Amino acid sequence: MGALLVVMLATAMMLVFSMAAIDASRSAPYRQSFCVTWRFNVDVNNLRDWKTVPKSCESYVGSYMNRGDFSQDASLAMMEGVSFAHSVFNSSTTAGTDAFSYNAWVFDIDDTSLSNLPYYAKHSFGAEAYNDTLFSAWTAKAICPPIHATLDLFNSLKDLGFSIFFLTGRSESERNSTATNLLGAGYSGWQGLILRQSEDEGVRATLYKSAKRKSLEDLGYSIVGNVGDQWSDITGYSVGSRTFKVPNPMYYIA
Amino acid sequence: MGALLVVMLATAMMLVFSMAAIDASRSAPYRQSFCVTWRFNVDVNNLRDWKTVPKSCESYVGSYMNRGDFSQDASLAMMEGVSFAHSVFNSSTTAGTDAFSYNAWVFDIDDTSLSNLPYYAKHSFGAEAYNDTLFSAWTAKAICPPIHATLDLFNSLKDLGFSIFFLTGRSESERNSTATNLLGAGYSGWQGLILRQSEDEGVRATLYKSAKRKSLEDLGYSIVGNVGDQWSDITGYSVGSRTFKVPNPMYYIA
Repeated sequence: MGALLVVMLATAMMLVFSMAAIDASRSAPYRQSFCVTWRFNVDVNNLRDWKTVPKSCESYVGSYMNRGDFSQDASLAMMEGVSFAHSVFNSSTTAGTDAFSYNAWVFDIDDTSLSNLPYYAKHSFGAEAYNDTLFSAWTAKAICPPIHATLDLFNSLKDLGFSIFFLTGRSESERNSTATNLLGAGYSGWQGLILRQSEDEGVRATLYKSAKRKSLEDLGYSIVGNVGDQWSDITGYSVGSRTFKVPNPMYYIA
Repeated sequence: MGALLVVMLATAMMLVFSMAAIDASRSAPYRQSFCVTWRFNVDVNNLRDWKTVPKSCESYVGSYMNRGDFSQDASLAMMEGVSFAHSVFNSSTTAGTDAFSYNAWVFDIDDTSLSNLPYYAKHSFGAEAYNDTLFSAWTAKAICPPIHATLDLFNSLKDLGFSIFFLTGRSESERNSTATNLLGAGYSGWQGLILRQSEDEGVRATLYKSAKRKSLEDLGYSIVGNVGDQWSDITGYSVGSRTFKVPNPMYYIA
């Protein structure tokens, strides 16, 4: 009788333990906030075509952008770019000669090279609907500060002899203010600034940017690196040997 | 004299404030641990070809995987998949008919559909060098538990009438153990299980998987969704209309 009880108890315990093991991944309590999960899924390109930051995540996104986490994430990304650039330089037969300048890097501008955080800090960090008029008035001021991690990469690339192209969704009509802002923020010595021409208006960013990168290749450039905050900057075709994603939880561009 | 002092003081203060504003993004102290930044840059595909998790991040990765954060991140990713699948179903003229089954989803297996966490928990969560003999002995047991978020997506897709293909880097010789494991973990009713044939051995994952997806397209399938934990699962060509990245900070496959 005692032995039967022991067997029954042991069987019951095994059942409980094995069920617990099977369901461990499901029953674990969620620790992190929804906003952390939301931002992760935005930056790995699982969530697409979203219009605004969830209202409940406004303060989280603000903290992420302002309190050092963004800078830290961007710094490691751009340090990896510096490391990759050095490996390309070190293995190139043309390093140190003019011919090396056919090795190109492409940089997006908004929230990759220049920061619109001062604007978004006044507009709910992306939790309110995009306002083209207000945003254009902001960029026209040409006072966007640099994203320092990106500027550091830019300067390293320049020192190594890469040709650097800015490729932006901004329009040709914004060339002067954009160039002024880039120079004022410390980006000097770039090879080209590619903006949307009238025939590019309305073309989705992925296609527009792919076509312009292809044109660079047609001119003889090899695209070594490509840096952007949106997946539409670094997907499509002619994306480059390596792509580098700057975090951006504030807005989405297809 | 007093007025001069005020002007001098005001000028000095303006200088200090403007410098502080310019350097805000640089001078902000780092809040999050290096391991958080490392994992982020791994999952957005900025860090590549790494061999092991940094030793100092072993316990962080273990916590991320075990304490619910992984499950939460994966759940939102797979819920987005469910949502996308419904939108495709709802806009399809063939929904509810056999013809709809030409709409396919592709799933990677290891750490996308089946979890190797029980193995990695005994092997430093990826902080020790990969051991092919030990890992193969583990998968041969065919006891990997499902990743529940993925299984939920799988079942939703099956209910809607999508054709589901597993596409794995495992070899043809592992077909039986892999099929047994999938069925035991709850994945039933799939259309195909594609493994590396002898001619595929040594081919990089991105190319191998792109070629197999292209073969599905050549058979008439339209790849609607594609789910993987590695970027080599969801980049290359014939990637599908939408891709879904399951987090994996434990190992990297090119």
